[in-house]
Order: sequence, then structure tokens, then C-alpha cells
Amino acid sequence: MNPCSTVLLTDLYQLTMVQAYVEQGMMDSAVFEFFVRRLPAQRSFLMAAGLEQVLDFLEQLRVRPDELKWLEQTGRFSRSCLDYLENLRFSGDVHAMQEGTVFFPNEPILRVTAPLPQAQLVETRIMNLLNFQTLIASKAARSVLAGGGKPLIDFGLRRAHGAEAGLLAARASYLAGFAGTSTVLAGMEYDIPIYGTMAHSFVQAHKDEKIAFEHFALAQPKNAVFLIDTYDTEAAAHKVVALAPRLKQLGIVVKAVRLDSGDLADHARKVRRILDEGDLPQAQILASGNLDEYQLRRLIAGEAPIDSFAVGTAMTTSADAPSLDCAYKLQEYAGRPCRKRSEGKATWPGRKQVYRQYRHDERFDYDTVTMVQAPGTGDPLLHPVMTKGRRLIPPPKLTELRERAATQLALLPDSLRSLECNHPYDIRISQPLQDLALAVDQCV
Amino acid sequence: MNPCSTVLLTDLYQLTMVQAYVEQGMMDSAVFEFFVRRLPAQRSFLMAAGLEQVLDFLEQLRVRPDELKWLEQTGRFSRSCLDYLENLRFSGDVHAMQEGTVFFPNEPILRVTAPLPQAQLVETRIMNLLNFQTLIASKAARSVLAGGGKPLIDFGLRRAHGAEAGLLAARASYLAGFAGTSTVLAGMEYDIPIYGTMAHSFVQAHKDEKIAFEHFALAQPKNAVFLIDTYDTEAAAHKVVALAPRLKQLGIVVKAVRLDSGDLADHARKVRRILDEGDLPQAQILASGNLDEYQLRRLIAGEAPIDSFAVGTAMTTSADAPSLDCAYKLQEYAGRPCRKRSEGKATWPGRKQVYRQYRHDERFDYDTVTMVQAPGTGDPLLHPVMTKGRRLIPPPKLTELRERAATQLALLPDSLRSLECNHPYDIRISQPLQDLALAVDQCV
Repeated sequence: MNPCSTVLLTDLYQLTMVQAYVEQGMMDSAVFEFFVRRLPAQRSFLMAAGLEQVLDFLEQLRVRPDELKWLEQTGRFSRSCLDYLENLRFSGDVHAMQEGTVFFPNEPILRVTAPLPQAQLVETRIMNLLNFQTLIASKAARSVLAGGGKPLIDFGLRRAHGAEAGLLAARASYLAGFAGTSTVLAGMEYDIPIYGTMAHSFVQAHKDEKIAFEHFALAQPKNAVFLIDTYDTEAAAHKVVALAPRLKQLGIVVKAVRLDSGDLADHARKVRRILDEGDLPQAQILASGNLDEYQLRRLIAGEAPIDSFAVGTAMTTSADAPSLDCAYKLQEYAGRPCRKRSEGKATWPGRKQVYRQYRHDERFDYDTVTMVQAPGTGDPLLHPVMTKGRRLIPPPKLTELRERAATQLALLPDSLRSLECNHPYDIRISQPLQDLALAVDQCV
Repeated sequence: MNPCSTVLLTDLYQLTMVQAYVEQGMMDSAVFEFFVRRLPAQRSFLMAAGLEQVLDFLEQLRVRPDELKWLEQTGRFSRSCLDYLENLRFSGDVHAMQEGTVFFPNEPILRVTAPLPQAQLVETRIMNLLNFQTLIASKAARSVLAGGGKPLIDFGLRRAHGAEAGLLAARASYLAGFAGTSTVLAGMEYDIPIYGTMAHSFVQAHKDEKIAFEHFALAQPKNAVFLIDTYDTEAAAHKVVALAPRLKQLGIVVKAVRLDSGDLADHARKVRRILDEGDLPQAQILASGNLDEYQLRRLIAGEAPIDSFAVGTAMTTSADAPSLDCAYKLQEYAGRPCRKRSEGKATWPGRKQVYRQYRHDERFDYDTVTMVQAPGTGDPLLHPVMTKGRRLIPPPKLTELRERAATQLALLPDSLRSLECNHPYDIRISQPLQDLALAVDQCV
């Protein structure tokens, strides 16, 4: 399954506007930027993700014959509009922050420069892709920061919002620093390490829990991880200890046990003792079950003897903030900067660049949002990634993006590493940009 | 785009368990049920949705050659497991509540009866499909109840969690009573009415707002709906009035205006007056912009002169409860009822039926959850829908399911129609089922 590339995965208004643009000959170059208006209450920063899927989508953009036929038979579109759609290819330029880059409100992370109908038509899917993966990478990064360096595994597929959400959440969380995922397809599509053991049903299907463990170990001798909370956690840990010598004779090492319910810290301590006293000091403890970054912090602070964590629903749905207040807005058309002034939703006009300044200890100090034409100090964060509809460089490896993300998290000032969000980052709107906004307002 | 049907969209543990089942010859019949453990805090009821996609998935279940090859090269699976997967088809039975049925915690809405490895392997995708559409139908139903009978339109695609979420949210919200969606693909795939007009960028791309409106009306003469909040809402309403006579000469009727920011009730009143005084009494007002069921209730109670509403992110992400505490649990294997007893996650064993009793006024009175073998009074809610891997009836029309959902909402007692959730519904666990749970516990 590749992410959906049909052009019809869009809002109808994109097509009605395209028709008007085509009929009026409004084919000049338009500049749209994607940015987040404000942070969710429980976020100090966001992590850009989803660019590769956006570039795939733009490279593959075309209307298939069956789609064109369907559009025609709706009776909504003129011949000239349908002809335009039939020959549609994306021929524009894209500038973007690399995936894994930490960013803040009002900072564009993607800029599309293309003939107006093209740049308009791609809005919905670009937002759909960037909103979701950025949402998940940003949420997952919080677990990474709270997880004390222990391996985290994405277990969220079953409650992800559909197939693509499950697959792309595995990608975004791996990018943000997770160690892997339970989603098999993410292993096949993105080469992400996959993890998995057994469910409660496996234990229940056997009349005897110990026999269930034995059967599993025989089937997966290198992956002997037992789920021990189906009936009584500590009793099951004793069964694992009792089984271990027999497995050892077969050359099977008990790799780990998994806890999935109850007071995880308390169970982990008791089970750790049972395993240690049972001559299984190498057997690790994996914990799962409604975990999120707050639970991780609590378990880490309490020094619960847990070796790795599976994080599911809370991460994969970004449960405390399941969307971003993001926008993809027209900033310039035919060389004329423009700006929306709707109440509470005004935007900064023109094509912009973001510069980042660093402190003496190399951590982030402040960002400046300004026009591309204006001089800036610090690192520019937006780079050209596509010209005339073609990628400028081959897709980077996901492991490279993951390293970049790790570096970014390491450069966060301590105030932004906290799960609480009391110290907003310093984001400056340059004077030339403020002047431009005033000038644009006076022209309308 | 059809919903993803690859078997590899699953958790790795399904495959590791399948391997153990195959190797141990555990091919007897297993019964799994999907149910919700408890309601989200802000829900009084849930609405079942997603069954058709589950049945499609089961009918199409197979491992493609490239997937099999990939599984083989991971080195994780035995020859016998791979052979089993190569020939895999779903040959089981399914019982389910019809889509659009209102249901409550601990009531199975789907029961799968199939050889254990099959019934196990399909868990992840079944949960993924039922969790999401049920989540969205249940959330959308709240807007339907709060919306005073006015048409509601799904505008959520851009912040839906990926492509499939956008498409299936359009389906689930239409099923629950929405009038349509902005998602074009949902029109093509599911024949859902599609709606759309213009974005702020359309107005911005023109130097003059009035010319923007004129251009749009010329391109979409039957769909002359103008977005009027880009700069100044009331000023734009006056421009619509000024433009109307010229459009009338061209045979174009101003159909509606859309408000998307600010105090919607206040703007609606002012704009209504401008339109009425401008001889445009037929022009409707459509409102959008961060709407949810609470905003709808407020606007309806305040008698804001708004004719229809677009509801986006809050509905399409089920923002106040972005997942259900749902489970797909083994209830019986080889004729032996079973039950999980994990702390806080215990389940009722055996294959179950739900009976619904009605009051004298035909509203729902209470439900009883019992075993299929036990007698029950009231309407049984689970029905056979698939036998030996084949649907028993052709897929129903979405409009039929939508009518069913409307009937169900009409039968809700008033206490459950409120947006507040103060009166839990009466769900009874039958005495025979309680006895069975005790008996099962004594056997383990």
C-alpha cells in the first residue's frame, strides 16, 4: 500500500476554483505556504514530518481516465476545466524544512511556487499529509524525551484512524526516535524494525498458560517474549521461570516478558525479583497498556525496572491534541504579496524564510521569520527540494532523517524539553515583514 | 482508492501467533467478539459503523506473492507458516449489528467464528476499521442531534489522519446523518453528495473581492456561493448585493454566502439583514470554522440565521475522544468459553447476543447481554452477515444505512439525546452469562 495519490482526494472547492482560474486565464505563479498558526496547549515545539509523501504526491500528480470520466458525468465542470485536468502535471518549485526539523508557530515549513491552479489544487492533500505526520512526530518526540533513552515501540495501528494513519504513524514515530513498530507493513514499505510477540487470546486459546508459553517459544525460538497478565501476572512470571530450564535444553533463551495491565511499576518490581531469583536476569521486561509521555516520565522517575515500552493509542492518535491549527495560505500571486485578514486568522504575506540563532551552548536561542529577499542572521531553515516538478535530491533514508531529528531534540533548550509548556520559544517577526503586512493592508 | 486490503497491515504478533497455531495444529473454531469496554466521557451512546469495509476485507483476504516473499526473507517465519499464509482465505462466519445501530459498552457489535489462525490474523484491521468509523459516526451523530435539522457538511479531509481517514470519515458522517461532504473521492467511491465553493486564496488571488465573486459565479453559475470573510465580512456582503443584479442578467442566482471566522451569530444577523435589504432573501448563509456540536447547539439556541453548517476537524478527528476503548477478544475456542481477567480489562466469556427492550413510546428502554444459547426478550441486535467467507446479502446502499441510523437516533430516550452524559443507559448482564463467567474462572 502506497499513500493515496489520487487527485480526487481533495475538497470540491479546489476543483471549482481551478475551473474559474482556467476560465479567467489566471495561470500566473502563486506562492502558498504551509504553517501552524499556534501550538496545541500541550506542545512546546513541533517536529516537521511528511515532506517525502508530499513530494511523492506532487511527482505523481495526474487525473486518471476513470476519474476524469466521473468528473465529467457530474455535470459540474466545463470542457476547458476537464481538458486542463486531463493534462495536469505538477511543474512547480518546492522549498521546505527537512523532516525532523523542530519548528514553531508562524514559521512556514513548506512553500509551493507554481501556476495558480496547480498550487491551489494540491492544498488539501498537502495539508492532510503534513498535518498528520507532523502531529505524530511532535507527539512521539515527547515520549522520546520522557522515555529516559529506553526503546519505545509503536503499538498503535489498531486505533489509528484507518490504514494510512497506521502506516504513516509508524513512519513518523520512528523518525522522531521510536525504535520500531508492530505494524508489519511499515517494515515492508519503510524498512522500519518490527516488533511483536503474543496476545491474550494466545494464552486463552490454550487450556494451560505454561503450555501456551512453551508453544510460542517453540514457534519463535529467537523471540521468546511472553505476555504474562492474562490471569495473574506474578503467577505467570513463576510459570516462565519454571519453563526456562526446559527451553534452555532446546537452546531457547527467555528474552522478555510483557506487562499490559494493572500498576506497571509494582508488577515490574515483583516480576523482576521473580525473574532474577529464577535465574533469568537477562530476561527483560516490556510494558504496554495505555502508555503516554506522562506515564513514561512517572515510570522512569520511579525507577521501575522496565526495559522498553510500547506506546499505542495516545501517540498514534495524538490523543491530547488530535490536529494542528495549520494552514496552507496564498502569500503571493503574480508577484503581488497578499494576506488574509479574517478575524483571528490573519497571516503574514509574501514568501518567507526562517532563520535560527543558537546560544553559546549550541542550543536553539530564537528564530526570525522574514521575507526571502530580506537579509537574515542564523541558519536558514527552508531549502529548495523540488524544481519544475522534480525532486532535487533522491529521497533521503529514513534512518538519516531519524538522526537529524535526534540532533534537533538534543539542541532543544531545557525549557522546551519539559512536558509542561510554560516557556514559549522566542519567535521574531522581522521589521521588513511587519512593514510588508502594513503595506499589503493599505492596498486592499 | 479502495480501503487497504493487504494482510500485512497488521501487528507482527498476529503472524507470530499464526505460526505457533499452525505448528501446533490449533485449527479449531475460535469465536472473537468486538466490543467497547466503556464510553468516552462525552458520549451517551455509540453508533456502529464500518461493517461493510470489514466484510470487504474478509472477502478479499489473501497474501500477495510479493508480500509472501518479503515475509520469507525476514527469516522470522517457518515454511509451514508461509505455506499456510500462501493459501489463506477467510472461511469463517460473521454476526454483526447493522451499521447505524446505536449500541453501548460490553455489547458485541461483531462476532467472528473461524479457524483460530484466521480469526486471529484479522484482528488488527477489524479493530482499525470498526474503531474509526464507529468513532466518527458516534461523534457526527452528536452534531446531527444538536444541529436542529439543518444540513451539516463534512469539511474535515485536510486534518483527517491520512487519506483513508478522510474518505471513511465522509462515509461515517453521512451514515450518521450529515448531508454530504467536501471530499470529492467520497462522491466517486460512495455516491455521497459533495459540496464546495471557494477558499480565501481565491479572493486573495484577485485584486478586487467583487471581481473574485463575479469570476466564481461565471465559472459555477449553479453554485454561486461566496466566501465573504477574507477581509471584512459585512463589506463583502454589500459587494455581493451590488453584484447580484449583474449576475441576475446572466441568469445566475446568488445561492449563498459562507462565513468562516469571528462571531458567527453576530455576522450572520448582520449579513442576513444586508442580504434581505439587498433583495436577496433567497440567498442562504452557510457557516464554517472550528464548529462542533456545542457550537451548533449554541448557534441554534440563539436562533442565528444560519441555514447550514460545515463541520470539519472536531468531527473528523473526534477531537474530544479520538479513540474508543475497544477490544476484539477470544470468547471461545474449540467449544470452550474463555475470558481474560487482566486487571481492569476482564471480559464476558462465550458467544453473546444483545436484546433491546423498548418503552411504551417506542424509545429504547434497556439492553440485555446474554449468551446466544440463553433465551432473551426484546429485539436481538446481532444478525448473521457472512457464512463461510461469503456475504449473505449484497452490500446495502449507504442511503439505506443512513435511514436506519436516523430511525435509531429518533428512538433514543431524551436523556441520551443531550450532549451532556448524565444518564447512563441501562445495560444488563444476564444471570446465565454471569454464571458462565464464574464457571470459566473456576476452570483456569
